[in-house]
Amino acid sequence: MSDRHNDLFRGIMALPSFPVVFVTVERNIMVAAAFHFYSFDPPSVMVGIKPDKHSYSLISKTGEFAINIPTKSQLDKIRICGSLSGRDEDKYARASLTPSKGQIIDSYVIKECPVNLECKVVHQIEYPGTHVWFVGEIRAVCIDDNYRRDDALMFWLGQFRSVGAMIEGSSDQELLR
Amino acid sequence: MSDRHNDLFRGIMALPSFPVVFVTVERNIMVAAAFHFYSFDPPSVMVGIKPDKHSYSLISKTGEFAINIPTKSQLDKIRICGSLSGRDEDKYARASLTPSKGQIIDSYVIKECPVNLECKVVHQIEYPGTHVWFVGEIRAVCIDDNYRRDDALMFWLGQFRSVGAMIEGSSDQELLR
Repeated sequence: MSDRHNDLFRGIMALPSFPVVFVTVERNIMVAAAFHFYSFDPPSVMVGIKPDKHSYSLISKTGEFAINIPTKSQLDKIRICGSLSGRDEDKYARASLTPSKGQIIDSYVIKECPVNLECKVVHQIEYPGTHVWFVGEIRAVCIDDNYRRDDALMFWLGQFRSVGAMIEGSSDQELLR
Repeated sequence: MSDRHNDLFRGIMALPSFPVVFVTVERNIMVAAAFHFYSFDPPSVMVGIKPDKHSYSLISKTGEFAINIPTKSQLDKIRICGSLSGRDEDKYARASLTPSKGQIIDSYVIKECPVNLECKVVHQIEYPGTHVWFVGEIRAVCIDDNYRRDDALMFWLGQFRSVGAMIEGSSDQELLR
């Protein structure tokens, strides 16, 4: 990469941290921090995937995916799923995770994750880059009663982090009830 | 909103936390947590803006914006900028922030923020929703030597948080040098 690229990439490196999630499609699992909401209404999320990933082919084919929010105690499973390709390995077996049939989608969701969002792809962002972003409308939501945002795990280039302490606002218990 | 919407919106509420940034364009400031990277190469970011915001008109007109990463000690300034409209008020004056002319863009960046990313809009995501997402290629980067990711501030619906403690990875100092 050129010096100019490296200089501008420092701007990407400087971003603080983003939620890390498992993206599931069919019987495969991918780890992603390229994830955000897209729209509040209809409630939609988006995920960015490199085209050489197995999940890219699967999402393109099926038009669906699930977002599974892990807990920070599942970092070992994230490491395992992030280091293998679903083309060659059964990541559920290798990471000791349980595939659970979706309510709405044909793909599996991860039973051990406290939040599962089942999504239908409604848009693929065409503008070229290293990642292709898929917008998915949330069609089914399953949240464990004991889930708190504090349980989740954050990541950005080079660093896994916990969710930071609350400075101001309502408690997770109030917000998620 | 319908019960069905409310049920699915719980999926959006369950997301852990995202970086909160100041988006500047011309001489206006907007607070956003609808912000992520878009592509590693060229280094690009995206920001989601509701069409009724003053910044939406300004970005549409100028085709540029800057991302300014605040520190958590600037929460009071975020509160001020988030509660006013730039149509009626000079947010720089109201929040005691200093507008500093961009290196590449004609818009101002915020002098007191440790990170300024100057961006040219290269794409506007057309798929309808509550937010319109603008993809911006980073064209100039200014990072204060003392900036650490730990300094930033996180937000998601109902909660301001600090950046969480590092669980695993390289230090900010190593990553950002």
